[in-house]
Amino acid sequence: MTTAPTNLDPYASRHVDTPAIVPRVDPVVYGSAADGPLDESQLTAYEAQGFLVLGDLFGNDEVATFAAEVGRLRACDELRGRAEVIMEPGADDQVRSVFYVHELSQIFNRLAVDERIAGIARQILGSDVYVHQSRVNYKPGFTGKPFNWHSDFETWHIEDGMPRMRALSCAIALTENSEFNGPLFLVPKSHLRYVVCVGETPGEHYKQSLKDQHYGVPDETSLTELVDRGGLCSAKGGPGTVVFFDCNTMHGSGGNISPFPRSNVFMVFNSVHNQLQAPFGQIPPRPEYIASRKPRQ
Amino acid sequence: MTTAPTNLDPYASRHVDTPAIVPRVDPVVYGSAADGPLDESQLTAYEAQGFLVLGDLFGNDEVATFAAEVGRLRACDELRGRAEVIMEPGADDQVRSVFYVHELSQIFNRLAVDERIAGIARQILGSDVYVHQSRVNYKPGFTGKPFNWHSDFETWHIEDGMPRMRALSCAIALTENSEFNGPLFLVPKSHLRYVVCVGETPGEHYKQSLKDQHYGVPDETSLTELVDRGGLCSAKGGPGTVVFFDCNTMHGSGGNISPFPRSNVFMVFNSVHNQLQAPFGQIPPRPEYIASRKPRQ
Repeated sequence: MTTAPTNLDPYASRHVDTPAIVPRVDPVVYGSAADGPLDESQLTAYEAQGFLVLGDLFGNDEVATFAAEVGRLRACDELRGRAEVIMEPGADDQVRSVFYVHELSQIFNRLAVDERIAGIARQILGSDVYVHQSRVNYKPGFTGKPFNWHSDFETWHIEDGMPRMRALSCAIALTENSEFNGPLFLVPKSHLRYVVCVGETPGEHYKQSLKDQHYGVPDETSLTELVDRGGLCSAKGGPGTVVFFDCNTMHGSGGNISPFPRSNVFMVFNSVHNQLQAPFGQIPPRPEYIASRKPRQ
Repeated sequence: MTTAPTNLDPYASRHVDTPAIVPRVDPVVYGSAADGPLDESQLTAYEAQGFLVLGDLFGNDEVATFAAEVGRLRACDELRGRAEVIMEPGADDQVRSVFYVHELSQIFNRLAVDERIAGIARQILGSDVYVHQSRVNYKPGFTGKPFNWHSDFETWHIEDGMPRMRALSCAIALTENSEFNGPLFLVPKSHLRYVVCVGETPGEHYKQSLKDQHYGVPDETSLTELVDRGGLCSAKGGPGTVVFFDCNTMHGSGGNISPFPRSNVFMVFNSVHNQLQAPFGQIPPRPEYIASRKPRQ
């Protein structure tokens, strides 16, 4: 293993002085339309853009159940103070995220294996899958802070030891995601290139980065180049809107000054053929509740 | 003069413990369609919504000239360090706003008396007008910070001594204002009600508030009530898009995580019948470059 981009690690990052953009060397879609449930045009769109938005996977009652469960987790006295619960930067009374929700909640435990999302993950990744990470983001009205631009894979590779790009996120909107409350911004086509980031990773980086990430984020020049090529897209839609996006799709979101909270639940599916190794950044691995290392299959 | 809402001052604010929403007691439109240049439907829309967006007042060449002038002011070594130049909160190398541009720049001096905007201001305000304040906001890409919700009039009344609601802002977009770079958010119909804000005004408040305003901002309950009634609207459009909005229209804007700067020039027109008195908040008036006190007409 090495700390600069070489043949040994095509996705080395940090520990370097100069940012760079290098090609993705892995497929995006590992399965085929014949596997279902996505059809050819949906798979092709996902492969080209790096994400796919679906509006009709869940019924209103189901989404209401998820939203109520998120409210319960947020207010749960037993959880408050636990490591899985991340507070907003500078606001110790405002929940920003709850991790590990597929283990903390029966409802999200069932959601994690729901065929309607896990089936799509299996099709795209061409294998059985498991939950690498799950979380709820709240982004409260008035005070919700931005999520800086990042490729999930860069962090999962460097800090968690995910070897290759064979994972994806599924984000389910639990509230309206509008132009006013800090919707997810995605950079189309950015998943096809990998931004090598600069800067040493501080110890226990995740304790800060889950509030406000500064390492493993692209430099402004690289991000601008990605946006010049692919543009920007926002994942807007009503409760129940589902976004699947590749582990290397560059994304971020602005703050929320509107009165309307913006709440999403994320399930990250990883291929069973892509299980975690030692972190490629040669740092201690992050805890199980952020990056699962339980043997799978 | 008093510090609580009474018959003596219908727009008293701050110095109170409890926020409130009180009715506007002034007209919104003082002129008529017969005065031109706006027609009846435009005036009616402005009166009802509290703002009006016009897309075709300036040619591309003119807007390019304004944009170049803004770039010049931003980079001008002579201006750097002057009180008129406001830096971003926490970033002393990033210009957030430049005030008094109608005095600092010949180009904006001419713009301030351009019939295409001053004529509309005279029509709406039903009298001759003068520039109460002018400024450019930059909102740089990646780092531009939000502007908190506020009614301009609340501050102009309490801190500057503007007696009544007979003023408006004209904002001209110098870059694309999109959903991605923190466009102006307006609360339709909010201009018809006045939010009494809580909290003592600190000394020399403007030195902080122009970076990040915390006094003279509505409480979350009042803002939510305004939005529940009127919804939210964003002023998006290409360079040259012009937004006229009433001095009491509640507005704000989010941060800018996109690579694209969002730059606007603002001219605030006040009626010559509404010239400044002693500040209603019983504090020393703000400087001339923020609130003009030169005798008019």
